[in-house]
Amino acid sequence: MIKVTVWNEYYHEHESEKVREVYPNGIHSAIAEFLKTDENLLVRTATLYENNLTDELLNDTDVLFWWGHMKHSAVPDELAQKVQERVLHGMGFIALHSAHHSKPFKKLMGTSCNLRWREDDKHERIWNVCPTHPIAKGIDLFFEIDKDEMYGELFDIPKPDDLIFITWHPGGELMRSGCTFRRGNGKIFYFQPGHETYPIFYDKNVQKVLFNAVYWVAPDVIDPEIISCKHPESPEQAYLK
Amino acid sequence: MIKVTVWNEYYHEHESEKVREVYPNGIHSAIAEFLKTDENLLVRTATLYENNLTDELLNDTDVLFWWGHMKHSAVPDELAQKVQERVLHGMGFIALHSAHHSKPFKKLMGTSCNLRWREDDKHERIWNVCPTHPIAKGIDLFFEIDKDEMYGELFDIPKPDDLIFITWHPGGELMRSGCTFRRGNGKIFYFQPGHETYPIFYDKNVQKVLFNAVYWVAPDVIDPEIISCKHPESPEQAYLK
Amino acid sequence: MIKVTVWNEYYHEHESEKVREVYPNGIHSAIAEFLKTDENLLVRTATLYENNLTDELLNDTDVLFWWGHMKHSAVPDELAQKVQERVLHGMGFIALHSAHHSKPFKKLMGTSCNLRWREDDKHERIWNVCPTHPIAKGIDLFFEIDKDEMYGELFDIPKPDDLIFITWHPGGELMRSGCTFRRGNGKIFYFQPGHETYPIFYDKNVQKVLFNAVYWVAPDVIDPEIISCKHPESPEQAYLK
Amino acid sequence: MIKVTVWNEYYHEHESEKVREVYPNGIHSAIAEFLKTDENLLVRTATLYENNLTDELLNDTDVLFWWGHMKHSAVPDELAQKVQERVLHGMGFIALHSAHHSKPFKKLMGTSCNLRWREDDKHERIWNVCPTHPIAKGIDLFFEIDKDEMYGELFDIPKPDDLIFITWHPGGELMRSGCTFRRGNGKIFYFQPGHETYPIFYDKNVQKVLFNAVYWVAPDVIDPEIISCKHPESPEQAYLK
Repeated sequence: MIKVTVWNEYYHEHESEKVREVYPNGIHSAIAEFLKTDENLLVRTATLYENNLTDELLNDTDVLFWWGHMKHSAVPDELAQKVQERVLHGMGFIALHSAHHSKPFKKLMGTSCNLRWREDDKHERIWNVCPTHPIAKGIDLFFEIDKDEMYGELFDIPKPDDLIFITWHPGGELMRSGCTFRRGNGKIFYFQPGHETYPIFYDKNVQKVLFNAVYWVAPDVIDPEIISCKHPESPEQAYLK
Repeated sequence: MIKVTVWNEYYHEHESEKVREVYPNGIHSAIAEFLKTDENLLVRTATLYENNLTDELLNDTDVLFWWGHMKHSAVPDELAQKVQERVLHGMGFIALHSAHHSKPFKKLMGTSCNLRWREDDKHERIWNVCPTHPIAKGIDLFFEIDKDEMYGELFDIPKPDDLIFITWHPGGELMRSGCTFRRGNGKIFYFQPGHETYPIFYDKNVQKVLFNAVYWVAPDVIDPEIISCKHPESPEQAYLK
Repeated sequence: MIKVTVWNEYYHEHESEKVREVYPNGIHSAIAEFLKTDENLLVRTATLYENNLTDELLNDTDVLFWWGHMKHSAVPDELAQKVQERVLHGMGFIALHSAHHSKPFKKLMGTSCNLRWREDDKHERIWNVCPTHPIAKGIDLFFEIDKDEMYGELFDIPKPDDLIFITWHPGGELMRSGCTFRRGNGKIFYFQPGHETYPIFYDKNVQKVLFNAVYWVAPDVIDPEIISCKHPESPEQAYLK
Repeated sequence: MIKVTVWNEYYHEHESEKVREVYPNGIHSAIAEFLKTDENLLVRTATLYENNLTDELLNDTDVLFWWGHMKHSAVPDELAQKVQERVLHGMGFIALHSAHHSKPFKKLMGTSCNLRWREDDKHERIWNVCPTHPIAKGIDLFFEIDKDEMYGELFDIPKPDDLIFITWHPGGELMRSGCTFRRGNGKIFYFQPGHETYPIFYDKNVQKVLFNAVYWVAPDVIDPEIISCKHPESPEQAYLK
């Protein structure tokens, strides 16, 4: 049983009729819905203004999805820090689309996480450049999404541990769009598709990638001790025979 | 001309006669002294309680050395953030020994940066496992330091871009001890040797490594714009012919 | 069901009474024996002079272990090339100890794979520097082996995709001793312990690492087409809408 | 003084009027010509059928460019092996365009080096995703080439040490097109642009990249000993005090 929590700022869905038509119950609900088809996952949700992440839920979460955009700055610094710490202790973290600029992701990366972007109505083609990675399992050499916002390089992230996907945009841009990072005991996956005005989280390939990602970032164990500064009790004990 | 600033918390040297005997004018002065033998470097120093880093000096610095230990928490958060931002814009950053736990380094890494440690009077052997890296230039397959504190794995850092040195300790530990990281436009080098009670910064091999590191982390240019979120002026312009 | 084949040159066991005492039926048999305790594995063996790898067995193998030492040059070039190709198509490959100099491993790495070595009767301590990697599952921060040959840096390999273990030797050496590499569709794990005169393959930690490695290098699929040069049938077809 | 040798199979230029118009004296001469404008480089050329690489020239070469396509199989295995060995000893190697399938490059990579391709008359846009790398010095966020063959993913190479450029093609493909690899003491750069029917090696950005690459892959020293298997003269000597 993997305990998954899907966090969403849940702002656009209230403000925009157009977004609400695509995601009537919020992006988090759409993601939770397809994840729930897997009986091995216990899926819960949290949103910024309604039931924001409590310590209790965070500390009972194995894998945290994060979708945020306009309200990054409304996320309390203290919460961002707690999320970072739980990742370092082992929680998996999946940052979606505009979460590249979210507080927890930026804290974990240490960089600006800036990128180029442009509102667009264009398709994109997502190339699978690491087909042996578990996150790419069942994904063809590439797949396409009908419409998405353009996100492109230069994407200011640390060198990914594994670069799995690169997105091609018809306007001339491209982006390292599926990236993994280990931080402490935690595993992180960033995935670029997912603009709020398009039904991207209903796409079968996107769902397959996210299922794979849940299983890949899920920890074997979340251990608050494992990365603590272990000081051998006495110098003598530390020595070998 | 590379503008180097050596920052030191400069606390142990005031509190401990033993440390003062080794570094009568502070660790920063010892480092600055050997760096000054290179006419291509403009070397300045700053310390926590006397002449802490001003905006003016930070913004005129190409490469920043950082030595801190007991007083990490006394470094203002605002200063740590300014250092992080300047690194992202291109400033080179060299974190020495106990600076693994300094605020700027931790912000840049995103991890706890914890490690195992033990006070010791033992020698260490530093293996050069990437001899073609510019930072290893002129360094043999290994070199030894007579006495140093023991710093060992598990060192909770992101996977280094290049792992150049691994330190062997006689007590049975080892550590990834010379590591590079690119973050934004900035280059970072962490180097483990350098306990305050031993004359490590007078060691010829250590000095050679640090000279090499200055030249490797030094930026071609420090450009506050280069990683900013560049939004093409109009969608049309972004398209190719 | 994962089909595992354990290849061994099986030379020392015939030539040396000392080796025969440790591995009376050969190193391959000792490895096969503990692997067979896992019902999910179909384990077979092959040796250089008796039942060397046939095309039939190689093409029915998902994961190939390789132990060789004195007789590397007796392995036919043609066989080494077939092993390389099967790895590129997806077969997992686990190179043990002196197999660092085996023909298939060198072909896959492209480097000399040289290292420093010394016959020794000393213990070694194997540090786990990537505890979240599946191959390190269940392994403590370090474990020890009573006696092994000394293998140390400089180990002339490409930068490992993941560096999981580093071995500490009491004589002052260390070595990147547990390394993964993706090549084509295949996954490769090199593991340093395993001198023929010591009962290392009966060690519980070594067995745990090798079990983990089997599951990690095992392919989802072995597809001779997936890395072939795919030329779209016509330029028109290749274009997007 | 860096001793650069430009090797070209020099076949298309003889067979095709169209190619000859672009490169009347061969691709190697075009490359040599612009390199010669740098007085710090000693530039020589070699071609498959006329003055193929002698041992003397190879052993006097610091940086070797390689352009080959139709005649990969005509390169003697022995020569390919000598090139590989010299790279492992420190020679820099720059593989251009269709040299992805050349014998020396494949030996150094250990993979098939296959990719997707299509003859095309289209432009390409080369994105600079590692602007702090010395090979990207002076290169903007992207540059364009008017016409080139399409080379795209999946490009079957080991994970590059640094991924510097990714090429965008208007037909929907992309490719990791500027990649570095360390192998032994040698540094390698693969660069994708350079089809024989287009004047790509006269392009100012391409020339800048190749100049940068020469300086980056150039060795400090070429030392046949440095990666040899160093066996301490006696076990005693190897031990520390």
